[in-house]
Formats: sequence, structure tokens, C-alpha cells
Amino acid sequence: MLKGNAIIAQSGGPTAVFNNTISGAIKRFMEKMPDSKLYAGLYGIEGILKENIVDLSYQSRFFLENLRYSPGAGLLSCRYKVQPEDHKKLIDICKKYNIRYFFYNGGNDSMDTAYNTYLAAKEMGYEMRIIGLPKTIDNDLVITDHCPGYGSAAKFLATTVMETGYDLISVSTKNKVTIVEAMGRDAGWVTGAAALAKRDPDDAPHLVYLPEVPFSLDNFIEDVDRVYSERGCVFIVVSEGVNDGMGHYVADGGTKDSFGHVQLAGAGETLKRVIEQRLGLKVRCNTPGTAQRSSLHFASKVDADEAYMVGEKGVDFALEGESGIMVTLDRISNDPYICEVGKADLSKVANRVKGVPVEWITPDRNFVTKEFLDYVRPLIMGEAPINMKDGLPLYVKIDRYKGLV
Amino acid sequence: MLKGNAIIAQSGGPTAVFNNTISGAIKRFMEKMPDSKLYAGLYGIEGILKENIVDLSYQSRFFLENLRYSPGAGLLSCRYKVQPEDHKKLIDICKKYNIRYFFYNGGNDSMDTAYNTYLAAKEMGYEMRIIGLPKTIDNDLVITDHCPGYGSAAKFLATTVMETGYDLISVSTKNKVTIVEAMGRDAGWVTGAAALAKRDPDDAPHLVYLPEVPFSLDNFIEDVDRVYSERGCVFIVVSEGVNDGMGHYVADGGTKDSFGHVQLAGAGETLKRVIEQRLGLKVRCNTPGTAQRSSLHFASKVDADEAYMVGEKGVDFALEGESGIMVTLDRISNDPYICEVGKADLSKVANRVKGVPVEWITPDRNFVTKEFLDYVRPLIMGEAPINMKDGLPLYVKIDRYKGLV
Repeated sequence: MLKGNAIIAQSGGPTAVFNNTISGAIKRFMEKMPDSKLYAGLYGIEGILKENIVDLSYQSRFFLENLRYSPGAGLLSCRYKVQPEDHKKLIDICKKYNIRYFFYNGGNDSMDTAYNTYLAAKEMGYEMRIIGLPKTIDNDLVITDHCPGYGSAAKFLATTVMETGYDLISVSTKNKVTIVEAMGRDAGWVTGAAALAKRDPDDAPHLVYLPEVPFSLDNFIEDVDRVYSERGCVFIVVSEGVNDGMGHYVADGGTKDSFGHVQLAGAGETLKRVIEQRLGLKVRCNTPGTAQRSSLHFASKVDADEAYMVGEKGVDFALEGESGIMVTLDRISNDPYICEVGKADLSKVANRVKGVPVEWITPDRNFVTKEFLDYVRPLIMGEAPINMKDGLPLYVKIDRYKGLV
Repeated sequence: MLKGNAIIAQSGGPTAVFNNTISGAIKRFMEKMPDSKLYAGLYGIEGILKENIVDLSYQSRFFLENLRYSPGAGLLSCRYKVQPEDHKKLIDICKKYNIRYFFYNGGNDSMDTAYNTYLAAKEMGYEMRIIGLPKTIDNDLVITDHCPGYGSAAKFLATTVMETGYDLISVSTKNKVTIVEAMGRDAGWVTGAAALAKRDPDDAPHLVYLPEVPFSLDNFIEDVDRVYSERGCVFIVVSEGVNDGMGHYVADGGTKDSFGHVQLAGAGETLKRVIEQRLGLKVRCNTPGTAQRSSLHFASKVDADEAYMVGEKGVDFALEGESGIMVTLDRISNDPYICEVGKADLSKVANRVKGVPVEWITPDRNFVTKEFLDYVRPLIMGEAPINMKDGLPLYVKIDRYKGLV
């Protein structure tokens, strides 16, 4: 058994069940390594580099026990691309606190960070086990069947589309078009999950557009016109990342984040204007935005439980001697749904993305197939528990000064 | 006891608990008047005028029992302004089906419709008891302490602001501003309820703008700049109806609906652009839109129960001989919260609106006072039950052809 301390940190945009993974890891590590310290790097790698690090044993039991029932990034998160000159500093900080276990919870970019940390430690001859703990509502990490956080985003969006669909369809007004803009960047996983809301042909959504196939404005207008003629109303779900297949986004803000990704916003608003101009129909655009990645009040129990398990198993893998890996979720069977935990080399995960298979999008490019729905349905089952107080959720926050090194 | 049949219909935008009121009225009328027919006018008054009317006894028991656990307008709704020439036709249709009880469930405009129907029946010497059943998330009906539907919208928005607030505050990125645009037209009741999410000074929301006081773009930018300097992030909730106090809306689409109301949309998007231009901060605008009036999956139990009671008591009042009234909710005490059902003359309700009292908005016009929060808090307590199937809510729809007259 490698003796020493551990650090855990979160990076990137939160998911509703982000803190389940952290909680699973914290509980497991504290149980198995009672003589080691468990540090949290606040604000991810950016905080670790500034030694913004707390010893978690100083946090209240109330916080530690209820962290998993709280949204956001419980250990605080960052969007920071590690620079080559950061690597030595990072390993020196790990040495300073005798950190031998390094758990990094995030998406693609975070797995890149974890992988580079793994390489840096190796190069510097410092023994440290580095485990990537996946999360992303975008569901675009490779090798893993799906990502913790995705099921809850899927459940939230499908529920919202069902409810706002009832709203749209049950009111007789002229010019009834609702657009919902879904998150997911260049992956249509969240967007496509909205189709779960449709139980009858009348039900919302009527049209669903994913970024994995080229988006044609002319075909889109034809689709909307046809559905409106047939039904008198149209419910559309569109991915924020729809594009023409040649790098031109429907909504290209023109700005880029610190990883060089184009910042997307406004596909829904843009299409609203196009419909209004070309078809003369009045359109409402709902943009749930970050509610898609934070709605723990109706999150998936399967997702929350799997996220927790990923944290536990990440610790198990590290203690068994694994390093340079990301924990994966491996679907064993779909009916009954059975999912086990596996692992993948970080080198094979970092900076790669997995979109929705094109064959899971209908040939007319405006809906998803039964295969897609069969894939996502098991992931939204059950409701994750939360605490309530005065009619609203009771969520907890870390005390950034307790146990500060 | 006035013998004869009854009709019930819904009008205007749905609320999450719209169908509780209808369900309360249907159950009570069927119990008390077993020998009478109970008709539903589909698509409100617009449908009644077209004799789009169903005898509810033909609907399935499953539908009737689960209607209250479903969002949208269960009997289908309209936005139709009754014209003077419609009145005779309407009363003639009531005569044709021997309708002696007329229950109309809606907001301000619907109460106007109910009042005009009352006057028309009177003028034509046709004995018919007309009861207005209130609903509106806008909470702007006069005399009643609050409106069925409001508590659930308040709970939804406060929950969403709390969860997306955790998302915003827990991630360290530069230029962090989130705007949530809230519904409510010219009333700030829904917007102000977002302030319930704030339990600590750090919590979202940091700034809340209601339409009852003049909105100044310069003061707004000063507020945002100050909060950003202090906290490094800003969470703003803004009413769709913010305006300069002289009829100029921040977002004036320039279009009007069939009642002549200006169609509002885009205050959030407009302010996003202003912040980006003037302060150089990157802003995300979440627009939950119609989710505010349809999110039954996390609706207030107090609201749902009161909505149901309003339907029951509306029938009781009619059978006791009342007519030309709207059912009201009268708050007897706040702690413990006790609320009883009363009544108000439709003539005193129709076409009037009640905004948030200006003294419940802070002097710097960017938050609400404790009095506001004490008013709204009892209305969001508990969670209304729903049915679930395959990880999503199970909602019901009327069969528009069963029992069609």
C-alpha cells in the first residue's frame, strides 16, 4: 500500500450530481486510509496551483454528509488550461503535502489536465496515482458508455419539454411555436433526450435538431411549416451547437473560452427570428441554460447512484495501484439495466469526444431513433433525494477557510 | 335549488396547478348535482361559441382522477376576446344545453369575459349563475390575497435560481454574470419570489428588478459593476416587464396580442448585450419561459391544495345562489399560515391589476423587502404529488371526441 495523502478537486461546468462522485470518493478514502490526510483543491487545478487547499477533516460532518445532496461544484471548480510551466509547480506542491493520490473530477479538458499531471509526475520521478473521475452533462467522453451527470440533464430536459409541451398544445392561439435551446456543445446527447417526452404523436417535441448532422436552414423552415400546417403548433428542441457541418454555427458568438472552444449561445433566439421572418409565425424561445446542469431537485437516481459509485471505485482503483486511468461506466445489459464500473487509460480519453452516432438520428435529420431512446431511458430512472427547508431545497457549501493549509 | 346543467372552461395561459381548480369543481359538482350534466367547453369561450363542448361523464375515470396531477390546460384554453356580437350567441348556446351554472377559470381577461357573460345573461333574462375561478402565475388579480398558480411559479423560480446560483458561484471563471428573465408581465410577483433563494449574503440572486418601479439602465449598470467588484460574479433576476415608468419597456417587441397587451420578450437578452457592451463582462441569460407556469414536477402543495379548494368552493357558492362573483383566497394569518375562501364581485375584479406594493421593493430598486418574502414564503410550502412512469411524469390529456355534443 502506497502511504501518503490524497487530493481531490473538480473542474469544468457542474452537473446536478457532480458532488455525488466527490462524496463517494471522500467517504471511501476516509474509511480505507484513516491515517492519511484528504485534501480538497478548491477551484480545481487553478486553486491547487495557488495552494488554495483545505484539509477536509476540518469540514463539518453536516457538510460532508449532505454534499451529495447539493448541486454545483461542492469543492469549487475552474476552467483553467494548465500551462507547461505549471507542471513542475504542481508536482512540487504535491510533494510538499506528500500527496500520493490525485483524484480529478471533470470532463474532456479535465481528463487532459489529469493526463498531463500523470505525465509530469512520471517525468519528475514522483510516485503519485492519478485517477480521472468523469462527469459531463454533454455525455461526450469516449470509452465510457455514458457520463455521470448526463442522466440528470436528460431527465430535466425531457420533463421540461413534456411540461412546456402540455402548456403549448393545450392553449389555442394563433402562431404557436416553442423553441427550447438545449446544451451539449458539439454533442446532441442532451438535446436528443428531449424526445423521451413524446409518448403520443401529438406530444412535444415535434422536431429535434442535433449538431452531429449538418443543419440546413431551408430544411428547417420546411419542417416547421409542415408541422405547423398539420398540427397548428410546433415544439422544437435545438442543440446550442447546430451547425452546417463546415464549422459555421447557427449561433456563432465569435468568442472563445480559455480552451479555445467557441462560446455558443443563441441558436434558439436566432432560429426564432428566422421563423418569424420567413413564416410570419410568433415564436417563444425557452433557454433553460444552466438549469440543465444544476437541477438536482428532479435529478435521476440512477445517475446520482452511478456518480457516487464512480467516486468510490476511483479510490478503490488507486489503492489497488492503478494510475493514469479514468473510471468508466460499462453497460452490461439494457433490459434489465445493469451497469458496472471499469477503467480506461487517460491517454485514450483526453481531448477526445464522442457524439451521437449518426445512425441514431432519423434520415430527415429532425428526430432521434428508437435506439437513441433505448440508450438513454435507463439513465433517467428514479429521483435522487434532496433535503428540504421552508419549501425549498436545503443545499450546503464548503467553508473555504476551515482546514486551509 | 336551481335545476339544470353546468359548463366549465379554462382561459389564458396555464399554471402548474390550473387543473386542480377544474378537478375540485368537477368532483364537487358531480357529487352535489348527480342528475345534472357537467359540460366542458374545450378551448375556453372560443370553443363554447363553436359548440366545441363535451359531456364530462363520457371521459375516463383515469382522466378525471388524474387531471389534477397534470399541467397545462386540461380542458384546453384560449386567448380570445369576446366581441359584443358573441354575447347573444353564447347565451343561446347555454339555453340550448340548459346550462344554468357557468364556471370560468382564468386571469384578468377571463374575469372580464365572465363578467360580460353575467351581464349578457341578465340582460337577456336568462337565469344562469356565473362564477369566476381565479388563476394566474402573475398573481395580479385584485381583492384576492394571492392567485392559484402563483405559489408554484414562485417555488419553481426560487428553486431554479438557487440551483443555477450554486452553479454560477461555484465555478471560477472570469466575467461571470447570469441573468434570469422572469415572467409576470407588468407585475413583479414571480420575479420577486426568486429572492427566496437567498439564504446567505453570498447566495443568488444578488440583484432583482421588478416592473413596478422605473428601471434605469445607468443605475442597473452601476449595480452590476459594484456587485461584480465585490464578489467576482453577479446573479440577476429581471422581470420581463421592466420599463422606465413612462411606458417604454426594456424589451418592447412592438407586437400586441388579441387583448391589445404588448408582447414582452427579451428583457434578459437586451440587458445581457448592454452589460457586455458597457462593462465588457461575459453574460449568460437563462430564460425558463413557460416552464414557470407548467413545472408541476416541483409545484407547491399549498398552491395545489388551494387551487383545488377554489374549484370546490366555486361550486358551493353557485349552488348557494351566488352569481357574478370570483372566488378569492383570504389570508387569515401568516404564522401559522391560515387561508380561507371568500368571494368578490366580478365587476370589481375584471380588467384590474394589482402590482407589488412599491414599499415592498428596496429603496435602491434592486431587491425586495422582508415583507415581500414573508408574504410569499407560506405559498411555496410542500410538493404537490404527481404520477411517474419510466422516469418521467405521467400526465393525462382530455379525449376531445368523447362525449362531444
